Order: sequence, then C-alpha cells, then structure tokens
Amino acid sequence: MEMSAIMVRDIGAFELTTVPIRDLESDEVLIEVEVTGLCRTDLKLIRVGHRDLTLPRIPGEEVVGIIRKLGGNVTALQEGCRVYVYPGVWCGRCPACRKGAENLCRGMQIMGFHRDGGFAEYVIAPAKSVIPVPEGLRAELAVFAEPLSCCLNALELARLGKGETVGIWGAGPAGTLLGRASRAMEAEPFSIELDRRRREIAKGSASCGNMKFDVCIVAVGSGQAYQEALGAMNPRGRLVVFSGLHASEDELPLGLNQLHYHEQSIVGAYGCSFRHGVQALHLIATGAVAVEDMISHRMALSDLDQALRIVENRQGMKVLLYP
Amino acid sequence: MEMSAIMVRDIGAFELTTVPIRDLESDEVLIEVEVTGLCRTDLKLIRVGHRDLTLPRIPGEEVVGIIRKLGGNVTALQEGCRVYVYPGVWCGRCPACRKGAENLCRGMQIMGFHRDGGFAEYVIAPAKSVIPVPEGLRAELAVFAEPLSCCLNALELARLGKGETVGIWGAGPAGTLLGRASRAMEAEPFSIELDRRRREIAKGSASCGNMKFDVCIVAVGSGQAYQEALGAMNPRGRLVVFSGLHASEDELPLGLNQLHYHEQSIVGAYGCSFRHGVQALHLIATGAVAVEDMISHRMALSDLDQALRIVENRQGMKVLLYP
Repeated sequence: MEMSAIMVRDIGAFELTTVPIRDLESDEVLIEVEVTGLCRTDLKLIRVGHRDLTLPRIPGEEVVGIIRKLGGNVTALQEGCRVYVYPGVWCGRCPACRKGAENLCRGMQIMGFHRDGGFAEYVIAPAKSVIPVPEGLRAELAVFAEPLSCCLNALELARLGKGETVGIWGAGPAGTLLGRASRAMEAEPFSIELDRRRREIAKGSASCGNMKFDVCIVAVGSGQAYQEALGAMNPRGRLVVFSGLHASEDELPLGLNQLHYHEQSIVGAYGCSFRHGVQALHLIATGAVAVEDMISHRMALSDLDQALRIVENRQGMKVLLYP
Repeated sequence: MEMSAIMVRDIGAFELTTVPIRDLESDEVLIEVEVTGLCRTDLKLIRVGHRDLTLPRIPGEEVVGIIRKLGGNVTALQEGCRVYVYPGVWCGRCPACRKGAENLCRGMQIMGFHRDGGFAEYVIAPAKSVIPVPEGLRAELAVFAEPLSCCLNALELARLGKGETVGIWGAGPAGTLLGRASRAMEAEPFSIELDRRRREIAKGSASCGNMKFDVCIVAVGSGQAYQEALGAMNPRGRLVVFSGLHASEDELPLGLNQLHYHEQSIVGAYGCSFRHGVQALHLIATGAVAVEDMISHRMALSDLDQALRIVENRQGMKVLLYP
C-alpha cells in the first residue's frame, strides 16, 4: 500500500512523493490524516534543520485523523475513531518520565522529527500516544490541541495563578493561544508585538513600556524580546523561555542580583506532555479556548512551499494543510 | 535608660558606645539580647554597605533574647519569655505580602538594616515579628533560626522534593545549613567547596565534575560557582540564586536554549518569611537540623573587630556574639 507524502531528504529541500505505508507494530495504529497544522518549527526543520531531526523524514507534528487499522495488541481503540496524536513516544521509565515530564524523556521520539509525521495521507503512531477527540469536535479545531498543549505546559511550569498578569511577547499562533489559555485560567494577558497587523488583532502594544507582569512569556525567537521581558517582571515574577533563539543570539547577559533581590525566576519550557493534549482538547471542545478564528489558510499538502512562505512572512495566522 | 551597642555611623567603621533606649510604641516589645549571630552579610554591611542599609545603625539581624517590657497594646506575649526575632517588619497589604512573600514587602524594614538590630544589650521589635522559642531550646541554638530560615525559603522556592539531589556550592554556615535542611527534607545534598578545611568537614568536592543535580544552590558569592552550577542541572533542574554577587561579576552570560530544551530554571531567593522562622525553630528544637557543632566562636560584642576578621577569613564556622 502506498501514500503521497512530503519527504525531506536533505535540509532545505522537500518533495511531494509516493512512499510505501509500512506494516504496523502490534502496539501501533494506522491513522488516515484529516488535517495537519503548519507551524514555525516545521519551517525551521525544513529550512535549517533541528536538534531532534533525523533524515529522511516526513514532517508534521500537529495531526488529527481517523483510525483505519489497529495493531494486533491494540484493544482500547476502535477503527473509525477520530483521534489527535500526541507527537511524542516516550519510554515511561527514565527520571523525566517518572516526573510526568515525558517531553524530556531520554529516549523521546517526536513525530515529524525522529518518526514520520503528518504531512502525508497516513501516519502511524503507538496506540498510547493517541487521544480520542471529544464527540462532535471538528478535526480542524482539534488539531489546535498540539500548539495549545505546549502553551499549557508553559503556563503550568510558570505556575500561573488566578488574577495574575501575563506579558506575552509575540502575537503569532503560539502567543495568541498563550493569551487565550491564560484568560481561560482567569489570568490577565497582555500582548507585546512588533508587527502592526498582529498587534492590532491582539489589542497589544509594540513595547511593554513600564508595565510589569507576574509572568512574562517570550513566544518569538528574539533576544531583544527576552531582554525586555527580563526587565518587566514583578517581584517573584517568572520569565518563561518558550521560544528558542538562533545560536547567534542565544547568550544573554543576565544580572543575577536582580533575580536574587526580587526572587524572580527564569523557567524553560519545551513541548508538552501527554496530559496537556487531553486538557487542550477539553478546553477547545468546551469553547474555553476559541480557535476557529485563528485559521487563516486552508491549503493542500501540494502547496507546502507557498504555505511555508506564509509562515515565514508572518502573513495570516494558522495555516492548516489537507492531504 | 541606656545600653551599650555597636553603632555604625559611616560605612567602614563602627564603635562600641552607650546609647539611650528609646520608648516603646504600643505594638512593640523590649528584648534583652542573649545572643546574636554574626554572618557575612554583617561584614558586607559594615565594610562596604548594603542596598537596604540606612545610617546611623546598630547592626545585627540574628537575635534571641528575653522579653523585658511590653508595649501598651501587646497582649499575646509575656515578660520573661524567650523569643527569636524575625528580622523583618512588613506591611501585610502589598502584593508581595499578600502572596506570603513578606521578605519582598514594598515597605520592608529589616532589623539591623532599616531598624536597629541585635549588636546591643537590648533590641526593640514589633510584637508581630517575635516568635516564642520552644520550651527548653537554648538561646545559642535558637539563634540559628535566622540563617536556617533563609535556607528553608530557598528550598521552598526550589520546590525541593524527597529523594532529589542537591548540589550546594559553598560549605560555610549557609551552605552547611542548606545541606542539613535538605537532608531533613529527605533529599540528597552534595557539597562543592574550594576551601580544603571546610570541604573536608562537609565531605565534599572542589568541583562538581560531571555530576548533575535536581537542585543547584550557590551559597558563595562567586560568579565561577554560578557558571559551574549552570552546567550541573538535570532536566527540569533548578539553580537557586542564594548568594548575591559583587557588581563586578554580577552579569553572567546565559544560554537561554539550554534552559528551553531541558526545561531548567534559575530561581532567585532572598531572605525569608515569618513562617520560615517558625519552621526553623521547630527543626532545631526537634534535632531534625543539628546546629550546635557549627558554633566555632563565642565572643563578646567588644571583640567585634576580631570576630569580623574571623568571618572575613572563613576561619571557623559560626561566630556568636554576647552583649
């Protein structure tokens, strides 16, 4: 059996091609992809590579689809069931897994990075990575569970409390979801965004000025944003390192005495755990976090090149791809 | 009424002199000092000044004594009662106070910094800052409640869990108490100390080598220690900024991607809250944290100059002063 898929064989290039669908392991399921989300990480992965990427690879880590076939030992899922795929495969035994941080699992295998992902007609995932989509929730809304999960992980690590203020640098898809998730947690988000169009949508500001926040989250790969956020924390404030930085600006001069005297923290956040997927689907299904208005483009996999340019140029908001 | 006291009128100098004892406010108590602890902060305060210091000032923020007089509105305490003095006076209304972080109170008045402290025969404190010492606990042990409180605050902010490993840079009084408090919390401390004598007492090492820890705490004012600790965190590890740094080495180059990918944190800790004093006295009284063997010098207030040199040269361990 064959399928069409986007294949990256070398960094910087990809092709829409036909590849065989491999046989299932006994603990896996075959999923017919309904929709995949495109994000900046895909752009980075294809254009400049990524720490976790092994080649050749079918990218795509935001996937919703229908189960079409079950491995021999899978009993808790059914064919025909719509599922969201938690993009990680974790060992469950290492220190990180035992702490509920399977995103940091020593043996982590990420769909679209170490394993083939969703830019294809079908994707294969272990049954334990699959989460049934709540009844009645459309695929193109459920697919936001992946980026929303990463936001929930970040807010959890920031220990965001009710009524706290949250400064969010960047009003792209991640920044927007961080703001909406913060509001769902009864906190008060404020957006800082340089792009005029995005800033207007987010009702934000180009700079935080003299504002101070309980939690600062940088959702844009900008050293300058981090510098501004470092200076915008309240006492006991937490700065979340949500976006990675290009190596050329990764090193920031950090004044330790500021953290010391004001008991402020800098907190790294990367990816998400399985439970965040469950929470995210719940927030989307109940409408606690609205996502539909964030869909700016619905495109075919064959238009990936154009779709990547849209992401690169920060046009629109969320781009969804259909096989 | 008069008393003898150490008075700092200008940075770099002090004198043992006779000063009047002022009248009590209605919410204050007069305490006859039994013993005060000397720490590196006193050395800094006297020799080079401190952010929170106002002059002229009687220093001394580690105090245990006997209540000798009650202000007109004080009803919950009794004359003759042995008390430990939480060194802060907080407003109780600002955002920090409402979060239980009165050490970060906007209007914080620290004994020995903003208010006169314990290097004297008597000290005046608000009744609400005073904690009765558990029955039978000697003053020279109870006085460790202050440095131990700061350690408890740091471990609380680090969210130290049972069974976690703790790397502690510096095996002076603070580092030693951090290790003992960690052990009382069923964690596994390991000491890193450059001074051979202190290293041997702490059964530690001069460098952490390839070791990694769940929590790293720097209890020595050394940028190099911070650099080493930054590289010694496990995934989800927390580096506690316990010791301030001299302004000349305050800025550290920080790689944000390391924090991002490993979900590590840097957490500032400064001083302690009132509740930590209660916890610290309990840990000392029950023997959960041993302190008696840490007393290396018992000296008279009149020997302060010599006592400061002992602290400066890291001779001995804990120096106690008697009026």
